[in-house]
Amino acid sequence: MPKTALVISAHAADFVWRCGGAIALHQKRGYEVTVVCLSFGERGESAKLWKQQGMTLEKVKTARRKEAEAAAKALDVHDIQFFDLGDYPLVMDQEAKFRLVDVIRAVQPAFMLSHSSYDPYNTDHMYATQVALECRMVAQAWGHNPGQKVLGAPQLYLFEPHQTEQMGWKPDVFLDISEVWDKKRAAIECMEGQQHLWHYYTNVAENRGNHFQRNSGGQSGGRPAIHAEGFQSVFPRTVDEL
Amino acid sequence: MPKTALVISAHAADFVWRCGGAIALHQKRGYEVTVVCLSFGERGESAKLWKQQGMTLEKVKTARRKEAEAAAKALDVHDIQFFDLGDYPLVMDQEAKFRLVDVIRAVQPAFMLSHSSYDPYNTDHMYATQVALECRMVAQAWGHNPGQKVLGAPQLYLFEPHQTEQMGWKPDVFLDISEVWDKKRAAIECMEGQQHLWHYYTNVAENRGNHFQRNSGGQSGGRPAIHAEGFQSVFPRTVDEL
Amino acid sequence: MPKTALVISAHAADFVWRCGGAIALHQKRGYEVTVVCLSFGERGESAKLWKQQGMTLEKVKTARRKEAEAAAKALDVHDIQFFDLGDYPLVMDQEAKFRLVDVIRAVQPAFMLSHSSYDPYNTDHMYATQVALECRMVAQAWGHNPGQKVLGAPQLYLFEPHQTEQMGWKPDVFLDISEVWDKKRAAIECMEGQQHLWHYYTNVAENRGNHFQRNSGGQSGGRPAIHAEGFQSVFPRTVDEL
Amino acid sequence: MPKTALVISAHAADFVWRCGGAIALHQKRGYEVTVVCLSFGERGESAKLWKQQGMTLEKVKTARRKEAEAAAKALDVHDIQFFDLGDYPLVMDQEAKFRLVDVIRAVQPAFMLSHSSYDPYNTDHMYATQVALECRMVAQAWGHNPGQKVLGAPQLYLFEPHQTEQMGWKPDVFLDISEVWDKKRAAIECMEGQQHLWHYYTNVAENRGNHFQRNSGGQSGGRPAIHAEGFQSVFPRTVDEL
Amino acid sequence: MPKTALVISAHAADFVWRCGGAIALHQKRGYEVTVVCLSFGERGESAKLWKQQGMTLEKVKTARRKEAEAAAKALDVHDIQFFDLGDYPLVMDQEAKFRLVDVIRAVQPAFMLSHSSYDPYNTDHMYATQVALECRMVAQAWGHNPGQKVLGAPQLYLFEPHQTEQMGWKPDVFLDISEVWDKKRAAIECMEGQQHLWHYYTNVAENRGNHFQRNSGGQSGGRPAIHAEGFQSVFPRTVDEL
Amino acid sequence: MPKTALVISAHAADFVWRCGGAIALHQKRGYEVTVVCLSFGERGESAKLWKQQGMTLEKVKTARRKEAEAAAKALDVHDIQFFDLGDYPLVMDQEAKFRLVDVIRAVQPAFMLSHSSYDPYNTDHMYATQVALECRMVAQAWGHNPGQKVLGAPQLYLFEPHQTEQMGWKPDVFLDISEVWDKKRAAIECMEGQQHLWHYYTNVAENRGNHFQRNSGGQSGGRPAIHAEGFQSVFPRTVDEL
Repeated sequence: MPKTALVISAHAADFVWRCGGAIALHQKRGYEVTVVCLSFGERGESAKLWKQQGMTLEKVKTARRKEAEAAAKALDVHDIQFFDLGDYPLVMDQEAKFRLVDVIRAVQPAFMLSHSSYDPYNTDHMYATQVALECRMVAQAWGHNPGQKVLGAPQLYLFEPHQTEQMGWKPDVFLDISEVWDKKRAAIECMEGQQHLWHYYTNVAENRGNHFQRNSGGQSGGRPAIHAEGFQSVFPRTVDEL
Repeated sequence: MPKTALVISAHAADFVWRCGGAIALHQKRGYEVTVVCLSFGERGESAKLWKQQGMTLEKVKTARRKEAEAAAKALDVHDIQFFDLGDYPLVMDQEAKFRLVDVIRAVQPAFMLSHSSYDPYNTDHMYATQVALECRMVAQAWGHNPGQKVLGAPQLYLFEPHQTEQMGWKPDVFLDISEVWDKKRAAIECMEGQQHLWHYYTNVAENRGNHFQRNSGGQSGGRPAIHAEGFQSVFPRTVDEL
Repeated sequence: MPKTALVISAHAADFVWRCGGAIALHQKRGYEVTVVCLSFGERGESAKLWKQQGMTLEKVKTARRKEAEAAAKALDVHDIQFFDLGDYPLVMDQEAKFRLVDVIRAVQPAFMLSHSSYDPYNTDHMYATQVALECRMVAQAWGHNPGQKVLGAPQLYLFEPHQTEQMGWKPDVFLDISEVWDKKRAAIECMEGQQHLWHYYTNVAENRGNHFQRNSGGQSGGRPAIHAEGFQSVFPRTVDEL
Repeated sequence: MPKTALVISAHAADFVWRCGGAIALHQKRGYEVTVVCLSFGERGESAKLWKQQGMTLEKVKTARRKEAEAAAKALDVHDIQFFDLGDYPLVMDQEAKFRLVDVIRAVQPAFMLSHSSYDPYNTDHMYATQVALECRMVAQAWGHNPGQKVLGAPQLYLFEPHQTEQMGWKPDVFLDISEVWDKKRAAIECMEGQQHLWHYYTNVAENRGNHFQRNSGGQSGGRPAIHAEGFQSVFPRTVDEL
Repeated sequence: MPKTALVISAHAADFVWRCGGAIALHQKRGYEVTVVCLSFGERGESAKLWKQQGMTLEKVKTARRKEAEAAAKALDVHDIQFFDLGDYPLVMDQEAKFRLVDVIRAVQPAFMLSHSSYDPYNTDHMYATQVALECRMVAQAWGHNPGQKVLGAPQLYLFEPHQTEQMGWKPDVFLDISEVWDKKRAAIECMEGQQHLWHYYTNVAENRGNHFQRNSGGQSGGRPAIHAEGFQSVFPRTVDEL
Repeated sequence: MPKTALVISAHAADFVWRCGGAIALHQKRGYEVTVVCLSFGERGESAKLWKQQGMTLEKVKTARRKEAEAAAKALDVHDIQFFDLGDYPLVMDQEAKFRLVDVIRAVQPAFMLSHSSYDPYNTDHMYATQVALECRMVAQAWGHNPGQKVLGAPQLYLFEPHQTEQMGWKPDVFLDISEVWDKKRAAIECMEGQQHLWHYYTNVAENRGNHFQRNSGGQSGGRPAIHAEGFQSVFPRTVDEL
């Protein structure tokens, strides 16, 4: 059985900027990575599309879906699911939450990925994380759909938000994504509506590479990484060696 | 070359209660673990001895040293060094700091262990951590004793203080020490002057075992650990897989 | 008129582990302590029952209720009420909240007890605390059911969560429960489905006893307590002497 | 086009105590300030009225509205709107939120003002701030009511809560309101039901004046301010000179 | 034996503004309160004196001492000691610290009072608190001047700084000082060099009285206090009843 | 009289990476900016030089000084002073502190710039900030060198550290440095020993430009900035308009 991972993305493009490298890398390592896009970001993150004449909500959603699918393909995503729950604001009722629980249980992820715990610019982001924790808990409950395989205790990694310091986000792990950077850059370039962010997130990946090296051995010559991604862990790790 | 680790202990007994399991386990895994006791805890942590008639500072230090050496032996410590700098308060001048830098460079630890960053009950503890960070930095400097091998960027783990919540200490890693618990208990029993803590730290180890299991798989049946120790990391990790 | 206290417990067993000693002690001191169990913990905290053949939600709830009633009896609880609102997730609509307000007003507690403010493992817990604060506020409103006696400003104590450091919970008061420990242990033993926690929470009580002594006089011989419980206050105290 | 500002006040009187000076001052500077009262505070903040014989919810709301309108007039408020959503607890459904978005877009404020992020005494307050952030985000979305003018990125200032330290509120800007203090005091005196707070908030304004002076030049003779108000910024500023 | 308390004041006037009420009240309750002024605040808190012609350091110190002694008398202070260690910056060597330890041991205080833990405006203040914690620890050590009576574990209360929110100071206890307000005001008026603060700290006392009432029973009619002081506890309390 | 600013830099190169843009911009705006380098970073931040044969401390200091002077020239620095106090660790005795106080008083800065408050990688950095606060306080004291002009209450901005999230640094102001970027880049290129950081800090400046735009008007088209720098304020601002 291959290992699995699950990404919970508030809007269609979030998984690309924030953990595209982790997705491509773990796919390469043999994981099966599932991405759930709770919304398309159709209202709040598609300004460029809305500036076109004759635009409708359906057209925006279609365009965003196509971009996300192309990016997912570039990253070798195992499965991408669009919940189409609406954005700005994203709202999940019990049914939507249980649908997410179903996915969590079906995937049985070794680890999960979602947004930062706080984001005053984008309340959808922190709401997604809150729901991720709630659904992780429900997925662990023996009394929820008894007979299904319950969830263990996977780590929840919070991926990098925009303007990290404003979100109180502090990475405690850096992942070397140098070997899959080309895939992440290709996925980024699928996001035609947000071209102003291509260069930005390339800079981020390069500077996180610097942080990787700083922490893997410091000034005396740590192992280099050309590109990296940072993550914040919600739960403690359990190990047999420090 | 065997891997190495370095413990910086403000007083003679701290390394036993707080990371005795980590020491014994890593020795078993082939590490060489060095322990530096900055003081004997002769003034502040030897109440039982001082209540005896005719006690002197030298007698207390000798007694504390013997206990610490016996505990170190029980834990298979590779090397234990007593800096004998005095306690309550512990004060380190430049010379003492550079002596610690020398040890850090000689050991070239894969990781370091010291106290929590805050401790209003015991300012020696937080002072030791502050000095550990300062000396780690000096050991990385190419211009300090040029020609010596400079330090890389080892993790600094903060071991468990007494009354964790008052110290703002939050463990992010639990280490399974079940297989060396007997050694840790034996080391604990060397601390004759602090017998009231034997049971206390046995409880801690058992309850940290419970936390290990909670986080290694949760209610659905995580891997059990009978005894564990918790640590807080100061620096982020660098990994090739989440 | 006897003094009163009110415990708001997300699931049927929480009040036992987390404040069973406080309940029994205050009953002994002449208080009337009411416990509200918002749910039975039937879905999320009854793994052992669900592993039995032919189990149903109703059977689990019945079993959990019986356990909770037995524990309440062991603790001399004045009144225990089961709101049966469902768990994992616990959700309270306006009606359920106003029902809780009714209880708060009827009891007129000198102090209230509930969960920690944060709990990423169990979102029901932090939700219960959030609702406790909201309902405390409504109970203070002169315009809510005008004519009823409004609530004063009772302290809200947050009782000890599992894995305190992960919840950001910091106790600022330790209560000596030595004289009622037998009752608490008896109540704990009513929780047949969670036998793995009996020893754990006995350890907790013993180690909190150590903390009590540390803070009641320290190394020079503070007043001992064999067993204690810790609590975090939400609101400041008002006193006539420090 | 005059500059504009928007105040989001959970209850009818909050804008008076907490930012009455800012309102009057900016009106004097040529701004048009709109105040939205989400509720009248009719249930929770009208104790004095409810103690009168024969009081009804409608009578309280009418009285509170009259007070708020009089205060608004004293402060030269450009526009005051009463959403009448109910209080203790304040609850806003999607429709109410979108109504607030409509106001935000119509006003196009240069800055917004609302409550502290945390308030365990009054959950309506922190709920209002949470909704303010959510609605600010929706107002920025090109796909929300396409064709309308979207919102830029106005600062959200959190005005001073009662018992600041308990709310974790920390002012990072002090506004000199000396020249409009008479207006603020007049507005305060419109709040007949809360006479016990007149003196309290006069003290606050005087002491914030002291803080203004402390930070505008310190002990060596900073510019004095007789009365001031403090605010906490949610977002960073963008400047051309420090 | 009367109960005792100990105030550690960085500069000569701090004890008046920040805990003058607590001093007078506890004296009235039968405590013997000792005040240690580590410096006279002669360089940094005597601007008015320095603006006079022909002023010298000795003259300033003499004037400040007289003011402090007069204030101490107004508050019925049992004993006031001037360490005359210099200010701006305050620096304490080992000898000065041990002198403070001697006082702590001689007094054997039931509780201690000092400054906030953080103060970016006045580093002497936070330094005094750091030293207070260090000396409290040394005073507890059986090996420090063996034979002397060691210290127990008294609470350390942090009294109210100027601009509380900037210092991260959060009061968890309010003390009703109404019955000794006249004494505190008289002591305040001894501070001729800082007349601009008389009104300020009267406002503070009144508003803390409001907070007292809010927390002693809230809107429904808590016990009033005309004047109060707030304190933050460093250590948890130990109790027999919540 | 021109306005002035003061930069306190722990090591010779810090002012370039962290606030080179602010320096050049304010010089252009007519300010006179003074830079104090407390050390040359000769031991800890000159790895490349130390790897050369026959290197000595004096040679390193000379080389670092030349680089810093060249960078200062590129930025149009008004005055650069080298205190030559040594690094790794940086230690300042009373004499060195008072020398810094002299500079502060001579410059009478409208604002000051220094390091982040916390830096576990580089304790020199946080030490410099601690000393900056202490010396700012001393410079305000009328009794320190009576007769000199005392300092007002200038803002202390903390400039951007490496790995911002690990330092707990949160910018609250972004400065548009686009018009002086060429000067900053030229200054950066003077740092021959740290070429690996040229690209890194160019990325930083570009991404801070993105943050500037995000906060100056958001997605709906805020004012662009090609390059920016971020700063964290220690003290609140005082304003006449929000």
